[in-house]
Amino acid sequence: METKQVKAYGTEAAEVPLNGLDINRRKPTPHDVEIDILYCGVCHSDIHTARSEWGPSMYPVVPGHEIVGKIISVGDHVTKFKVGDVVGVGCIVDSCRECEYCKEGLEQYCEPGMTGTYNAPDKHLPGNPTFGGYSESIVVDENYVLRIPENLDLAATAPLLCAGITTYSPLHHWKVSEGQKVGVVGIGGLGHMAIKIAKAMGAHVIAFTTSESKFAEAQRLGADEVVLSKDAEQMAKYRGKLHFILDAVSAEHDINAYLALLRVDGSLALVGAPEQPLPVAAFSLIPKRKTFAGSMIGGIAETQEMLDFCGKHNITADIEMIDINNINEAYERMIKGDVKYRFVIDMASLKN
Amino acid sequence: METKQVKAYGTEAAEVPLNGLDINRRKPTPHDVEIDILYCGVCHSDIHTARSEWGPSMYPVVPGHEIVGKIISVGDHVTKFKVGDVVGVGCIVDSCRECEYCKEGLEQYCEPGMTGTYNAPDKHLPGNPTFGGYSESIVVDENYVLRIPENLDLAATAPLLCAGITTYSPLHHWKVSEGQKVGVVGIGGLGHMAIKIAKAMGAHVIAFTTSESKFAEAQRLGADEVVLSKDAEQMAKYRGKLHFILDAVSAEHDINAYLALLRVDGSLALVGAPEQPLPVAAFSLIPKRKTFAGSMIGGIAETQEMLDFCGKHNITADIEMIDINNINEAYERMIKGDVKYRFVIDMASLKN
Repeated sequence: METKQVKAYGTEAAEVPLNGLDINRRKPTPHDVEIDILYCGVCHSDIHTARSEWGPSMYPVVPGHEIVGKIISVGDHVTKFKVGDVVGVGCIVDSCRECEYCKEGLEQYCEPGMTGTYNAPDKHLPGNPTFGGYSESIVVDENYVLRIPENLDLAATAPLLCAGITTYSPLHHWKVSEGQKVGVVGIGGLGHMAIKIAKAMGAHVIAFTTSESKFAEAQRLGADEVVLSKDAEQMAKYRGKLHFILDAVSAEHDINAYLALLRVDGSLALVGAPEQPLPVAAFSLIPKRKTFAGSMIGGIAETQEMLDFCGKHNITADIEMIDINNINEAYERMIKGDVKYRFVIDMASLKN
Repeated sequence: METKQVKAYGTEAAEVPLNGLDINRRKPTPHDVEIDILYCGVCHSDIHTARSEWGPSMYPVVPGHEIVGKIISVGDHVTKFKVGDVVGVGCIVDSCRECEYCKEGLEQYCEPGMTGTYNAPDKHLPGNPTFGGYSESIVVDENYVLRIPENLDLAATAPLLCAGITTYSPLHHWKVSEGQKVGVVGIGGLGHMAIKIAKAMGAHVIAFTTSESKFAEAQRLGADEVVLSKDAEQMAKYRGKLHFILDAVSAEHDINAYLALLRVDGSLALVGAPEQPLPVAAFSLIPKRKTFAGSMIGGIAETQEMLDFCGKHNITADIEMIDINNINEAYERMIKGDVKYRFVIDMASLKN
């Protein structure tokens, strides 16, 4: 298979910082589009993968799965896009397309496994990992490429491709709607998107935070109420009141305290991934038929639906733009929670 | 309010065995029926309540919420039943009837709280607890009384009123149906009912047990397959294969090992209540959007639906009949798991 060398930013090992490197991209096959990358959001998964924190990664790792760019060439059989289109690529660049989950549009749960945008075995270049959005360009099958609504700011749209769909999908799957009381736990990259999206779905949004300093911020983002989660008295007021809770906290926390806030048939969906198992009391679930669930990104059709929804409601992420050579510093700040709410790399800084 | 003294069996304190005692029942009000109790099943809750193991009970405790009997008198306004009808009473004898849950037929989740058949504040006799089925007779509002299908053995039907509905309700709520693969964990009072009911719903039933000695029993009860849960190799064969799991184990067990067996969007519903919280790994739920849920008995209309379903499919519990004066010994045997699968008291033994 013919390849083309492009500039990228990544790492050769878990212990070393990211730096500039060259990678090979395949030349577009008949169903591929080639995308000049304009912006790439920075997700916590990028750090976990670069550092082999979720098991050993395949090096070099070039992270980045919140990609917005412009199409610069298309394969002969491409029908959905043309040169010049502004498009997005999220966490998925391929899947088996044949299993029941792929057929249902649940490519994220593909039976033999989806192809992640980075650090997955590359079907086209055997023996190589896929490389993500910290690079000049990317080549992706048109079926895994998304349209970006015209009214949205492109840089602030990049995080929708992971943080946006990760929160939209469970809110949508568990049928959050007009008039429901919806809790959002954790106001970070994921949580700030959840507040905006749940609000746009018509829910009465209650944000939970461990820090009073985040009250004004949560309200600015659209929360109708804000609760200090460590204050048992404030928490007690919401006991049995919430229809749904989106839990975006990756640190250890008491899940039973939140399950107590659900109504009969209420669900708490976890999208953050604490390292240690969460102890769940049987009586947190049994007396009101509650469910404790998890959810992972979303399928391709649902991601397009989310982008269209965000276009309609004028929703983007709150971002801080950085140059690619600030990425290592950005990682350190993210680990400390020092970002409102998503770093986005201006990829022009890689090309210059 | 006029009362009538009736014979019962119960206890005055947590530490002493059950023995014969006299209790007062109200005389039937216009909406009540008076039931001569023929059979009463023995549930683990009876033991927990008699012994104040779920918090301090109100003494005397007269347990029993798997009641089958015959109507011996009816109040003036009773329209649903007549003298001579064979009826059942389960875990619920009253509820507020006004909250949204009562209106939806979810009396078990009544907002101000349902009135339990025993050890709940008695609305009619203020200051007294309700008394359960270990007694000659009981007086219950007709709206909380169930019809027993004519074709079923009455003694073996008694356990349907708690063990039957506790397993039917989640199987029904999570839409178990023809062709689905359904796991049942724990083959005891609840589990043996779950196998029979899931099978009658058309599911392919896979029973999980810690003991090879239960394999033949599980098959006799209707399981299509039986898995030794401590054998990792056997468990691995079912990874990602099950639509639904009903978990009826009250002892500590590794919930993640069972969550791993669920398909995308699969649910595990807990009806057993282990004392200690169950550690749940985030990655047991997130990668396939799984849910870990709880469920508690069922509403009145659903209990009638379950009884009719059991009538249609000729399902009853496997029971061992005892006299009331063997109840303390029966409790000890239940604690050791030495019963196939439910004790039922022949209440004639109390009257003689």
